[in-house]
Amino acid sequence: MKTTLDCIPCIIRQALDAARFVTDDVAAHERILRDVLRETAEIDLSQSPPVVGQKMHRQLRQLTGIADPYRKAKDQFNKLALEMVSELEADIAKSADPLYLALRLAIAGNVIDLGVKGGIGDGEVRKAIRNTLNEPFHGDMEDFRLATGQAQSILYLADNAGEIVFDRLLIEQLLPARVTVAVRGGPVLNDALREDAKVAGLCRLVEVIDNGSDAPGTVLEDCSEPFRRRFDEADLIIAKGQGNFETLSESETDIYFLFKAKCPVIAARVGLPVGTHVAMHRGTRFRDENASPLHWVSTT
Amino acid sequence: MKTTLDCIPCIIRQALDAARFVTDDVAAHERILRDVLRETAEIDLSQSPPVVGQKMHRQLRQLTGIADPYRKAKDQFNKLALEMVSELEADIAKSADPLYLALRLAIAGNVIDLGVKGGIGDGEVRKAIRNTLNEPFHGDMEDFRLATGQAQSILYLADNAGEIVFDRLLIEQLLPARVTVAVRGGPVLNDALREDAKVAGLCRLVEVIDNGSDAPGTVLEDCSEPFRRRFDEADLIIAKGQGNFETLSESETDIYFLFKAKCPVIAARVGLPVGTHVAMHRGTRFRDENASPLHWVSTT
Repeated sequence: MKTTLDCIPCIIRQALDAARFVTDDVAAHERILRDVLRETAEIDLSQSPPVVGQKMHRQLRQLTGIADPYRKAKDQFNKLALEMVSELEADIAKSADPLYLALRLAIAGNVIDLGVKGGIGDGEVRKAIRNTLNEPFHGDMEDFRLATGQAQSILYLADNAGEIVFDRLLIEQLLPARVTVAVRGGPVLNDALREDAKVAGLCRLVEVIDNGSDAPGTVLEDCSEPFRRRFDEADLIIAKGQGNFETLSESETDIYFLFKAKCPVIAARVGLPVGTHVAMHRGTRFRDENASPLHWVSTT
Repeated sequence: MKTTLDCIPCIIRQALDAARFVTDDVAAHERILRDVLRETAEIDLSQSPPVVGQKMHRQLRQLTGIADPYRKAKDQFNKLALEMVSELEADIAKSADPLYLALRLAIAGNVIDLGVKGGIGDGEVRKAIRNTLNEPFHGDMEDFRLATGQAQSILYLADNAGEIVFDRLLIEQLLPARVTVAVRGGPVLNDALREDAKVAGLCRLVEVIDNGSDAPGTVLEDCSEPFRRRFDEADLIIAKGQGNFETLSESETDIYFLFKAKCPVIAARVGLPVGTHVAMHRGTRFRDENASPLHWVSTT
């Protein structure tokens, strides 16, 4: 997905938020902001927003000398999610449709995103998870059941720390032996790394790989060769979060995108209101013939 | 008031909104946005935000070749305000405190600001005016009564078209013979010009001058010599809107600022929640000794 002009003010805002998140040095905030303004003035709009985010976060880490400035926040969200997870496991166990509930919880967990305006607090996460089934949802459960049921191998692209704990609940419903989980190859924003997958209990359940890239999405040309091979070989990709949607929405692969539409540009792209919890199938290999037509709004 | 780092993403957003408002040419939107990004990267933060806005809007007019791109919108807001004004005049006439109601309506009219996110529609203006007295208000009516009662000459700095019709209701309560109204010296955003003052019925009521500047505020060093003389000679300035507040908040003159706090930076500066209708006295010459202390939050 290309970067739109509407993304630009948001990129600038994110740069300021991120600068303030990683350091208290006001001079550094100004320096970062001026650098990002200069770079954004020359931006290649055919790139997806995570490519811009990748550069910006590299710069933040370089400027502060902190390898993973969001580590503490990620630990905190993992802890919070783990506190909630036993009760949710019990809910899933007694649910009439465990796959559906687990899917909805995994999407609800996508609320843990420090890139959005104002960030997110513990209370909001708790509320979002508690209210999961009352949130607006767009997806075709029978299509999801069919696609995930037929695929021999599933590559699950994780998004954020904390969120990855809720992903585990869904993965447990997907015959984990078929599933490989991929995390980012290096720290960026509050995106999940291998250690987050481990804390979430995924490493004892499935194979966990990393994509070799520190972009807050899946920029295939920036990913490692081994990851790209796994990506090509997988029967079905499940891609969590806006960053993975932004970077893979034009891929030819069979992908199920699961995310909360948090920004107006992405909401417009999928033709749904901001705030919608989305399960959206791209590709036809494992499609339910009777599935309702996709909303998919061209921006070109 | 200096430009803060928080103003930067908002300036970029305003540039995009303004570009889209004045032309449908997408290439022009991109050109404007890139220019503003480049300029903002080198911004002098000791300047007030309207100085940045002035440059940006000059560029927009130059690029589109349209001398006053907001003319149509301004006409529409004047028309809307004039449709509402007879009923409001009747309300004021039968009010127990006509000056108070007129003051509140003049502040409520400050909602007509095309610089804010998402712009403003007719319905919102109608609603804002209808609900005037229910809006959160911070001001000391007795201090306002005293200051405006004692001043021999009042220079009233208008802000936006449409809003200026509501300003007339307040000016009618202020012994108009003492009042001079100043509008901008040239088109910028939806700020009021001489023709708007005329349509609002002010030209037959008071002397109307212009400030000689096309900044969306009162940048004294950019104003004409005759205007500056009037500014210095006036006993009391009444300054409408955020732009006038941003440019004059550090002035030594006796000023009553009347505005709706529409942005978090200004709300923080005055120590009040976003959305508050503010009547704030700067200066001591006409101060009620018993007036409640001012909220005035230093940002330096």
